[in-house]
Amino acid sequence: MPTLYTYFRSSAAFRVRCALNHKGIAWTPEVVWLLTEEQRSDAYRATNPQALVPAFIDDDGSRLAQSLAIIEYLDETRPGPSLLPADPLGRARVRSLSLLIACDVHPLNNLRILKYLKRTLGHSQEEVDAWYRHWVAEGLSAYEAELADPRSGRYSHGDAVTMADCCLVPQIFNAQRLKCPLDAYPRTMRVFDALMALPAFDAAQPSKQPDAARATS
Amino acid sequence: MPTLYTYFRSSAAFRVRCALNHKGIAWTPEVVWLLTEEQRSDAYRATNPQALVPAFIDDDGSRLAQSLAIIEYLDETRPGPSLLPADPLGRARVRSLSLLIACDVHPLNNLRILKYLKRTLGHSQEEVDAWYRHWVAEGLSAYEAELADPRSGRYSHGDAVTMADCCLVPQIFNAQRLKCPLDAYPRTMRVFDALMALPAFDAAQPSKQPDAARATS
Repeated sequence: MPTLYTYFRSSAAFRVRCALNHKGIAWTPEVVWLLTEEQRSDAYRATNPQALVPAFIDDDGSRLAQSLAIIEYLDETRPGPSLLPADPLGRARVRSLSLLIACDVHPLNNLRILKYLKRTLGHSQEEVDAWYRHWVAEGLSAYEAELADPRSGRYSHGDAVTMADCCLVPQIFNAQRLKCPLDAYPRTMRVFDALMALPAFDAAQPSKQPDAARATS
Repeated sequence: MPTLYTYFRSSAAFRVRCALNHKGIAWTPEVVWLLTEEQRSDAYRATNPQALVPAFIDDDGSRLAQSLAIIEYLDETRPGPSLLPADPLGRARVRSLSLLIACDVHPLNNLRILKYLKRTLGHSQEEVDAWYRHWVAEGLSAYEAELADPRSGRYSHGDAVTMADCCLVPQIFNAQRLKCPLDAYPRTMRVFDALMALPAFDAAQPSKQPDAARATS
């Protein structure tokens, strides 16, 4: 069974959990405790030289890093519902929506960035929260505009779940946790609600991961 | 002829220029003046709802956003040297290296972020430069570690140019412009030098774009 190096609240790991579950791939979680920066340890670097979560170890021992690269790999090597459309333009659109979240929202609000703002630059929690909400608002406004495209449907692209949906859901979870206002994104939230009604996405959420208990214990 | 919405110093546009040139695709530049935030205008949003550079308009009028999505689309729809390996594991590695730059380095050092640090948070140029260098060092250390993998060769993955190389070159240009120390990354700089010896990459660099003159005039 393949192994996913994960942390319950990691947005990038959450994306891969959605993809694994949606494709019906059984997997073993290996928890990397970000709060103590376990991802920067030599042991973890031997698994993932990029020193970030997630990492994926396939049955043959192949090691992969970066959530979107892992999802595309799963899609190329496993049966089950495809997370990318069959046509190049559709694939480009799904990748573009995925990258909007993965490049232009999430990296700015990653734990290591918030730590730098707080510890190195000495910002207050209020200033850090304002930073967080600013980039969420920028990104979700763009996502909402993209969803006006008639190619969007029940989900971000058409009526089948795609990689873009795997990126969207964790970002909305983060936004909700930081109490970002979401009323301005009705199309986005409709897609989010439809996705969360799927058992595969529901089971991937942070509170349902084995390490969630460790955080609150 | 397809159109690329570009800005000479945009790292993401630079990636696509490398890909277009390397694949031998003729293209027309349409300059988006980031310094006056032209990318946020209603006119540009009609082309790219994400309000970021680059955007790509294909001959049939199809509009694409996000540099990596554009590059993968070009690779899937055009002849010429492929920017992704033929095997799923190789593709995953190239995507992973690309995303390391595109998600974990570049977004943190984008013009809009530096502006926020300076104007909204009131940081000095020195503090902004330290921020910039910090994330470059984090990212390039990881890239250097990745290049120890025997699958790396003359370029980031083997001896053929890939999408990862299209991401690496603009990031090194940015690092050099901000005077980031690069001595600690000999493997990375060897690959960079090999890439810059290619006419396709040389022609894609900021100083050789038509809008470079406008910036200094």
